[in-house]
Amino acid sequence: MELIEVLECHRRIEPFVHRSPVMQSRQLNALSGLDLFFKCENFQKAGSFKIRGATNALLSLPEEKRKRGVATHSSGNFAQALALAARNLGVSAYIAMPENAPFAKREAAKNYGGVIQLCGPGIKDREKAAQVILERTGAELLHPSNNIRVIHGQGTAGLELFQDVGELDAVYVPVGGGGLIAGVLLAARLAGGKCRVIGAEPEMADDAYRSLQTGEIQYNEKPPETIADGLKTHLGDVNFPIIKRWAAGITTVSENEIIQAMRLIYERMKLVVEPSAAVALAAAVRDREKWTGKRVGIILSGGNVNPSKLPF
Amino acid sequence: MELIEVLECHRRIEPFVHRSPVMQSRQLNALSGLDLFFKCENFQKAGSFKIRGATNALLSLPEEKRKRGVATHSSGNFAQALALAARNLGVSAYIAMPENAPFAKREAAKNYGGVIQLCGPGIKDREKAAQVILERTGAELLHPSNNIRVIHGQGTAGLELFQDVGELDAVYVPVGGGGLIAGVLLAARLAGGKCRVIGAEPEMADDAYRSLQTGEIQYNEKPPETIADGLKTHLGDVNFPIIKRWAAGITTVSENEIIQAMRLIYERMKLVVEPSAAVALAAAVRDREKWTGKRVGIILSGGNVNPSKLPF
Repeated sequence: MELIEVLECHRRIEPFVHRSPVMQSRQLNALSGLDLFFKCENFQKAGSFKIRGATNALLSLPEEKRKRGVATHSSGNFAQALALAARNLGVSAYIAMPENAPFAKREAAKNYGGVIQLCGPGIKDREKAAQVILERTGAELLHPSNNIRVIHGQGTAGLELFQDVGELDAVYVPVGGGGLIAGVLLAARLAGGKCRVIGAEPEMADDAYRSLQTGEIQYNEKPPETIADGLKTHLGDVNFPIIKRWAAGITTVSENEIIQAMRLIYERMKLVVEPSAAVALAAAVRDREKWTGKRVGIILSGGNVNPSKLPF
Repeated sequence: MELIEVLECHRRIEPFVHRSPVMQSRQLNALSGLDLFFKCENFQKAGSFKIRGATNALLSLPEEKRKRGVATHSSGNFAQALALAARNLGVSAYIAMPENAPFAKREAAKNYGGVIQLCGPGIKDREKAAQVILERTGAELLHPSNNIRVIHGQGTAGLELFQDVGELDAVYVPVGGGGLIAGVLLAARLAGGKCRVIGAEPEMADDAYRSLQTGEIQYNEKPPETIADGLKTHLGDVNFPIIKRWAAGITTVSENEIIQAMRLIYERMKLVVEPSAAVALAAAVRDREKWTGKRVGIILSGGNVNPSKLPF
């Protein structure tokens, strides 16, 4: 039932999102020995896949709830996405953002019409700030990743990839809060076939890796220092069961591997991506001997980065 | 007759080049008030449109000349393009490159199999170095822009743009040596319609602007300091008559306008482009009141840049 929901969600959100292109690179194929297919969500509206889930969650709210607005806490991309999705549908969006979120992301969320409330960088700080907003506004809380409507929405990125390129042997998906990989897992099941969906995580924020190892949701002790700023959050009780049941594994990568992958994407593919997106390529490259000559999808999750401050 | 040559050239080179995508940006449309269509030659093989002309020139050579190889002098993109085109066709490529060409461009030309000869930065230095190569190898000299076969090849970028998006009101084309704009002018004539083709040039290398003003080919006194390193060369006797006859004008832009346009392309479109490509957008933005609400093409000529050293 969740599977068909991804398809219905796709029909629902299609008017509000881009069908992002899938790109290939002969140079990266030659370097990696893989046949790579990059789903370019860096070209998505508001700069990342998050508009998909945000739009679906908003469209699923009853009219009376939409009137009071929606609220969330986010390190950046979901904030921008929710602000834009809400504006598209005439809904107010209240957003708690950590003070250490990139300035460009804060500004973008504000420019899309979001009402921003800055808070501390920890998960608890964000949750508390969101709670204050809810009490003040009566808005509906939308979690950036641990919400089944959001998961269905993010899954449409995977659905389009499978529709556009046909069967794949594997897909690498960056894992932060777990909404994207849970959605792509549902889409892969929906597509049938044998595609293995693998999470990609920084070693410095390997909570999902440890969660799969132990079978229980694990947390990062303190805010991780990884440059992949979109992947610092932890899994939730809605997406973890999906990930636990169907993910083929999680591959973790070092900061240096992330930076090198990011550099390849800029220099060889001429694409602006954020570090979190490069984590998926870095993980596929790490695992390349498993997939030599195979068809491997990479979800380039977003492109919201300050290009003047690249880490290479 | 030259017009139909562009079409035949397109059929000839199609197996060896990418049909690069045309992209749009709602954000840049909103900012500029124009309906912009970006022909993304930054995604082209060897990172710029130059592979088109290089491939056509090589395919047009008689077999016995191909055997002795080809030579050229280039600040970078034509060098890479000729090296790759030559490798694709099993031909030797000898290239005189100025010492101040970006290191990445030199390395790329070498990696594509080109035999590189470094020389001084001036036009005369390059021409002399190329002459030495010719005497030593018996190779055929291919000029990067002042060669009708090269012009036909570059014109296919314009041809594809017109084929893919239909009629345009204007197209902005970066002008360095003049091969690209001459080719696009032929393609625009071939497409029929009323599209005005406008050259885009840095104020610091405004030789083509002055050439159109005076009706005679003008030169830059010394190597210009513009960051648009691909646009420092001057027009030639093959392309200038075409440009003089049909170009609707040349718009010059400041270094700051180039940098701001480049930044917009990175931040809003998530594309890696080189400064020379941004010159075309900068010129369209400079002229925006002329084209409010109109359909304007931009040739994003290339993406060969060191992303660690962006000028913003």
